[in-house]
Amino acid sequence: MSERWYRQSGKDGDVVISTRIRLARNLPVYPFPAGMTVEQRREVCQKVRTALQAGEGKWEYLEMQNMLERDALAMVERHLISPDFAACTEGSGLLLAEDESLSLMVCEEDHLRLQAMGAGLQPDELYQKLDAIDTALDEVLHFAFDERLGYLTQCPTNLGTGMRASVMLHLPALQERGMVQQLANTVSKLGLTIRGMYGEGSRSEGALYQLSNQVTLGISEQAAIDNLKGIVAQIVKEERAAREEAAKSPVFADRVFRSLGVLQNARLLSHEESMKLLSYLRVGISAGLIDTITLDTINGLMYDVQPAAVMTAARVDMDAAARDAARAAMVRETLR
Amino acid sequence: MSERWYRQSGKDGDVVISTRIRLARNLPVYPFPAGMTVEQRREVCQKVRTALQAGEGKWEYLEMQNMLERDALAMVERHLISPDFAACTEGSGLLLAEDESLSLMVCEEDHLRLQAMGAGLQPDELYQKLDAIDTALDEVLHFAFDERLGYLTQCPTNLGTGMRASVMLHLPALQERGMVQQLANTVSKLGLTIRGMYGEGSRSEGALYQLSNQVTLGISEQAAIDNLKGIVAQIVKEERAAREEAAKSPVFADRVFRSLGVLQNARLLSHEESMKLLSYLRVGISAGLIDTITLDTINGLMYDVQPAAVMTAARVDMDAAARDAARAAMVRETLR
Repeated sequence: MSERWYRQSGKDGDVVISTRIRLARNLPVYPFPAGMTVEQRREVCQKVRTALQAGEGKWEYLEMQNMLERDALAMVERHLISPDFAACTEGSGLLLAEDESLSLMVCEEDHLRLQAMGAGLQPDELYQKLDAIDTALDEVLHFAFDERLGYLTQCPTNLGTGMRASVMLHLPALQERGMVQQLANTVSKLGLTIRGMYGEGSRSEGALYQLSNQVTLGISEQAAIDNLKGIVAQIVKEERAAREEAAKSPVFADRVFRSLGVLQNARLLSHEESMKLLSYLRVGISAGLIDTITLDTINGLMYDVQPAAVMTAARVDMDAAARDAARAAMVRETLR
Repeated sequence: MSERWYRQSGKDGDVVISTRIRLARNLPVYPFPAGMTVEQRREVCQKVRTALQAGEGKWEYLEMQNMLERDALAMVERHLISPDFAACTEGSGLLLAEDESLSLMVCEEDHLRLQAMGAGLQPDELYQKLDAIDTALDEVLHFAFDERLGYLTQCPTNLGTGMRASVMLHLPALQERGMVQQLANTVSKLGLTIRGMYGEGSRSEGALYQLSNQVTLGISEQAAIDNLKGIVAQIVKEERAAREEAAKSPVFADRVFRSLGVLQNARLLSHEESMKLLSYLRVGISAGLIDTITLDTINGLMYDVQPAAVMTAARVDMDAAARDAARAAMVRETLR
């Protein structure tokens, strides 16, 4: 398998970690998953799997009920599945393609949640990929669609395009200036939302923020993507300006290099501390202070330090203290 | 010049950084320095200098009034002179021999303060050196001596042997357990005292403590030294046991390696922080966790990170912020 998408960096990679787009689709005839019997769920899984595997690309099918808890949680950390889906038992399936950059949850909130992820800013590219898959699937599955409302979804907030496009932003300088809340207020007026790394209500560790469109009704996919791109461009500009200002202080380089020193030497690292230190290091690399480590490496580490990822890599469940030791060993090895 | 004594480690060097002995002596005829005219001070300086330079070894003579403030303060940091003596102007001289392990302040509190310093625990060796010099000087200068009281000194606490023997101890584990105060109470009953690195009332940075004899009257030099050695042996044993206990925690190695990482990478280091980190690192080296850096190096750094030492090395006065940057650069270079 080629290096997974999240171990790479892309366009505007100093600020934009990744882009993610998902489409919500449903089959006619069946009720929404919340109202389905296990039998019906299995039928839908089978239909979707058959339709998808008949088309282009190689898709792997995983039944959620067969998955170890830590592996499922690690998939939540990699944004492949939702926390609710990780807890699913019978009649929930996950289809994965390429380097995990394409995925499809069957029988989550909607019958299909088709998703594309990629490094850096690339909403157009990802949407084109999804659109092609969506079109091919539609020919077989005939998605529930209303001329007036668009694609029908269980939750009304997804009606219309059924599309959610989001970017993961690294905003350490704006966060340090306390400007993220103000930014959140501004973007909400423009039909977008900013949240912590794991979505609504989550804390932002490592100054990572998820910006996504909220409006799906009465707007085309392209218009929603263009809107997102315009706002991202503005935030990227502001974050870069704030970083340039911050880099003038001698404290800046000190913090970057201390972070490197601790990450390269610590024997115990909590998730929270490692995210904080990786965030500082990331800014230092972007600013050109460190050229022996790439943004790709840091982006990968930001996934690898997460609790379930640490356990999945070791193939064993651990308590917090054991995870801290395993995490530190992994980070040390990676940054050696 | 050979590597200075304080860049080395010696016997019981995991706990005993260094040993220092000084003798207080006075000439007859002249009043004590506090009551002398500048003319008399100059005469005494000249007499002592002549007597010393006529004997064995090569002694360099420095007039305090010609010394830059930062260089004088760096000598205080290296325990070559007292803070009061650093502020002296006319009629105060310093004689230095070997690798600064032998020194003689002329016209400090007493006419002569002859001192020997060395790495690790070596009071017998140092006393023998001093005794030989003392005997030779006495033949020329005929020190003030009373059959009943012994050597006469300005301060009655030095009457008798005029000798102060002390060891610099590194007690991180006992300090962490909060046992230093109890230790201080115990040794005071045995005629000794424990103080912070720069003597009475000073804070202990880097867990360095100075243990010295207090009794000079009614006791022979050898008895005082034997007393000191016995108590040092006991403290060394307790500190080692406490370290062994502390080393069982996974937090121990983490702290040692983090300290290394920060020292090798920081761009700004305060004196206080660097002493704390060097202290952790020192314990890690003693425990065998780190074998690429020697105790000699750490011992030298513990002197080099001090404020005046940083300025003296750079040959320029600096404010605290500039010192922090210069200190970090020096530490980085040394520990690379």
